[in-house]
Amino acid sequence: MILHQIEDLVDRARHHEARAIARLISLVEDGAPELRAVLRLFAPTTGHAHIVGITGAPGVGKSTTTSALITEYRKRGLRVAVLAVDPSSPFSGGAVLGDRIRMQEHALDPDVFIRSMASRGQLGGLSAAAPQGARVLDATGFDLVLIETVGVGQSEVEIAGHADTTVVLLAPGMGDGVQAAKAGLLEIGDLYVINKADRDGAKSTARDLRNSLAMSEPSDGREREIILASADRGEGVVKIAEAIDAHLVWLTASGNLAKRRARRITMEIEHLAIAALRSKMIAHVEDLTALTEAVVAGKIDTYEAADELLEIFGRIKP
Amino acid sequence: MILHQIEDLVDRARHHEARAIARLISLVEDGAPELRAVLRLFAPTTGHAHIVGITGAPGVGKSTTTSALITEYRKRGLRVAVLAVDPSSPFSGGAVLGDRIRMQEHALDPDVFIRSMASRGQLGGLSAAAPQGARVLDATGFDLVLIETVGVGQSEVEIAGHADTTVVLLAPGMGDGVQAAKAGLLEIGDLYVINKADRDGAKSTARDLRNSLAMSEPSDGREREIILASADRGEGVVKIAEAIDAHLVWLTASGNLAKRRARRITMEIEHLAIAALRSKMIAHVEDLTALTEAVVAGKIDTYEAADELLEIFGRIKP
Repeated sequence: MILHQIEDLVDRARHHEARAIARLISLVEDGAPELRAVLRLFAPTTGHAHIVGITGAPGVGKSTTTSALITEYRKRGLRVAVLAVDPSSPFSGGAVLGDRIRMQEHALDPDVFIRSMASRGQLGGLSAAAPQGARVLDATGFDLVLIETVGVGQSEVEIAGHADTTVVLLAPGMGDGVQAAKAGLLEIGDLYVINKADRDGAKSTARDLRNSLAMSEPSDGREREIILASADRGEGVVKIAEAIDAHLVWLTASGNLAKRRARRITMEIEHLAIAALRSKMIAHVEDLTALTEAVVAGKIDTYEAADELLEIFGRIKP
Repeated sequence: MILHQIEDLVDRARHHEARAIARLISLVEDGAPELRAVLRLFAPTTGHAHIVGITGAPGVGKSTTTSALITEYRKRGLRVAVLAVDPSSPFSGGAVLGDRIRMQEHALDPDVFIRSMASRGQLGGLSAAAPQGARVLDATGFDLVLIETVGVGQSEVEIAGHADTTVVLLAPGMGDGVQAAKAGLLEIGDLYVINKADRDGAKSTARDLRNSLAMSEPSDGREREIILASADRGEGVVKIAEAIDAHLVWLTASGNLAKRRARRITMEIEHLAIAALRSKMIAHVEDLTALTEAVVAGKIDTYEAADELLEIFGRIKP
């Protein structure tokens, strides 16, 4: 694409044209060269949207909750975008029938944009792609951007941690509620939802969680709310939306919004710089092969090989 | 520690002293400076152990299966080490009573070493630490090194992919068996275990999995076996062990073992090189802060900031 076409695409996306927005997200996924121009055009106009991470293990009802939240926020007249960066998400193709029906309802709404995102060509993977995708949706005038992640695993926790507000979902009786909570989720949640609260054990899951949370002080000093919900019945959804909104009010008033966003941008810069260095590395396949052979033969260790590799880089112009 | 002490520690670990081995794994976790000397000393003597990844979502019974496999391999006289890099693993502290009892049995066996591993100081996180931990256990004379990972999330999938043989565990009726399978697990498994096979739905889970696997050709051309097991009753465990052993025989005969190990070492070199670059970045906090502020102000985009950062690095000697 030449610059004129990119400008046209950005312009159509700014006028809420769904196909143009989808095309931009594809550019993010692919790590396409056009992306640089897109982000340059968007740079002055980001920072309006509330970026909300929805995270939790497979099966806790993330997509049902997300769907219910879309409905709730549409009632209030907000434009809502969903970025599902969870490869196990029903949004990514594995939807059960009920979910599909709910999603179809939103699909007809021009002020809702739902998209699952992979990282086909992105160097730095989804950790680099997700914030860029959110930035694109922010710049194209969505008020709320929901980022759905599976929340188990380092990079997923990282993605969730990059949102303005992170909602952690748990479910009772899955045998992994507390285990999942241990997997780094206690550090990242701004608010917690015990979904499927009509099931046995919801209260004890909430109690366990409250005890676990009590053992660690939130870094920003704000008490973390726990909400019981049954998103498939629509119960507790208004409460979740209210808690999300209250968190934004608090973030703004306390100055934490600016801090979080600056931290997010710093991490994105680091990711992109590392990705650029990694692509340099891939271009030196012969050197890497020789170093690997030396390690296999037991002549050098991996640290010495890494030093050698960086030494080679230092001698070569980009 | 001075070199003399490190040599002494390595020597004691080579004589199977559990405390010395544990100390070495701690050095790996911490990314301690001593680690370089340790890995240099070990470099000529690695490559004996069979490195086996055990991966699956929380609740599928990874630790029960691992425990049953330890018992099985001890019967055959092998020295077995377990590295649990799953933060939600019972090995990491959340064991239910039954698991603890089983583990205590192994704890008294001097030829079994079980250790959960975090990455406290490791740059590059567990993706860098796990292969180093496995290398240490390999070099200290274990015949089998089991690496347990949660297997959901990019870095976990990456760790599992670095084993010689990767066993993927699923369980019926968890509502997420197929979803988890989608989360990259279909690409990494060398053999699949449907655990808790006494439960309803085991056969249909196996059938679904077989259909999913049939849609993708394994990159190495070997058919992927599916085993039904109930590890808590000891059912199917011998079959799993036999399949693991058969896979090693195949790997060796086909030349794939050497290929996989070379690829693993290449990735480790890359990880270490990137980690070294990242630590360089952390040392330039002021530059990063200034670049972040420029992005927040909408003056530049994150790509331009990353370029600028690399430009700054290029001007500075390490």
